[in-house]
Amino acid sequence: MITPELIHALPEIREIKTGIYHVFIQHTSASLTINENADPTVRKDFETYFNKAVPENDRDYLHDDEGPDDMPGHLKASLLGSSVTIPIRNGELALGTWQGIYLCEHRNHGGQRDLIITAWGE
Amino acid sequence: MITPELIHALPEIREIKTGIYHVFIQHTSASLTINENADPTVRKDFETYFNKAVPENDRDYLHDDEGPDDMPGHLKASLLGSSVTIPIRNGELALGTWQGIYLCEHRNHGGQRDLIITAWGE
Amino acid sequence: MITPELIHALPEIREIKTGIYHVFIQHTSASLTINENADPTVRKDFETYFNKAVPENDRDYLHDDEGPDDMPGHLKASLLGSSVTIPIRNGELALGTWQGIYLCEHRNHGGQRDLIITAWGE
Repeated sequence: MITPELIHALPEIREIKTGIYHVFIQHTSASLTINENADPTVRKDFETYFNKAVPENDRDYLHDDEGPDDMPGHLKASLLGSSVTIPIRNGELALGTWQGIYLCEHRNHGGQRDLIITAWGE
Repeated sequence: MITPELIHALPEIREIKTGIYHVFIQHTSASLTINENADPTVRKDFETYFNKAVPENDRDYLHDDEGPDDMPGHLKASLLGSSVTIPIRNGELALGTWQGIYLCEHRNHGGQRDLIITAWGE
Repeated sequence: MITPELIHALPEIREIKTGIYHVFIQHTSASLTINENADPTVRKDFETYFNKAVPENDRDYLHDDEGPDDMPGHLKASLLGSSVTIPIRNGELALGTWQGIYLCEHRNHGGQRDLIITAWGE
């Protein structure tokens, strides 16, 4: 859950009354999504569910050079998406009470992940 | 299928020749997507499919305080997404012939859902 | 993988230092996503995975007028999404090293697909 870091990263949004905040992840085996920010078991259940829904070791995968988490990582990344787009209202992200921004790591050893943040409005 | 309500909600888009229309849902167990707007059985089949693909009562879920539809609702919300972004051309949403905007309710008793609409362009 | 065609389609992005590039597909049985642009087996594995995850010939589907790939096409389209939104930096799409834009065709005989591209920034 990276909402605080993202808000901290671009203090200029405080000057935007009505606008949009866009976060993009420059990777194909990690993703961004918005979900429940209060109970940490939601994030654990996300991992449980996606590991079942996108299994490792499917013998039909052709792309497995980097190991059994390689192709599942790519699939999970596209199911969840590479960007989130959030309205800005009165200098703040207009997230709902329970919403937070998740950075979803789909590799077992993913390394550093680079994000690009863009905001616009007036 | 909420396309008519959304167009009605922001009549200013008529003044935008080229731009973008963004709709955001402030919830973590409901979502927005674009799909077939003509045959209502498509929406029924969406519900059938997602209830199979994201089952209730998985014993591995840790987050179930609000009942068996709690965690599946969060998962479905992230699979479908919390916003849609649509081009505006000549004062209208540039949707394809068969496209409509769905508000997907993933709880059995979801209550009111709040949307935030933002449009920009010139 | 349609990244080169998309960059070619809107040369004006070269004049944008900081901005956003948005691509929208006007169809309900084809989609857009961002994923690995180097190894073509990733695209084959996408097709393998989605054909298993969204099966044809589920007897519970009500909407099947156009054949067994009709409803699965709609479901896959919403799982992957109808648009991608990418930052522009210094006149170029700020994609990661391995990222490319996929046009995902979910029908067996899909015909022509129309995209709408919008870019903004300064």
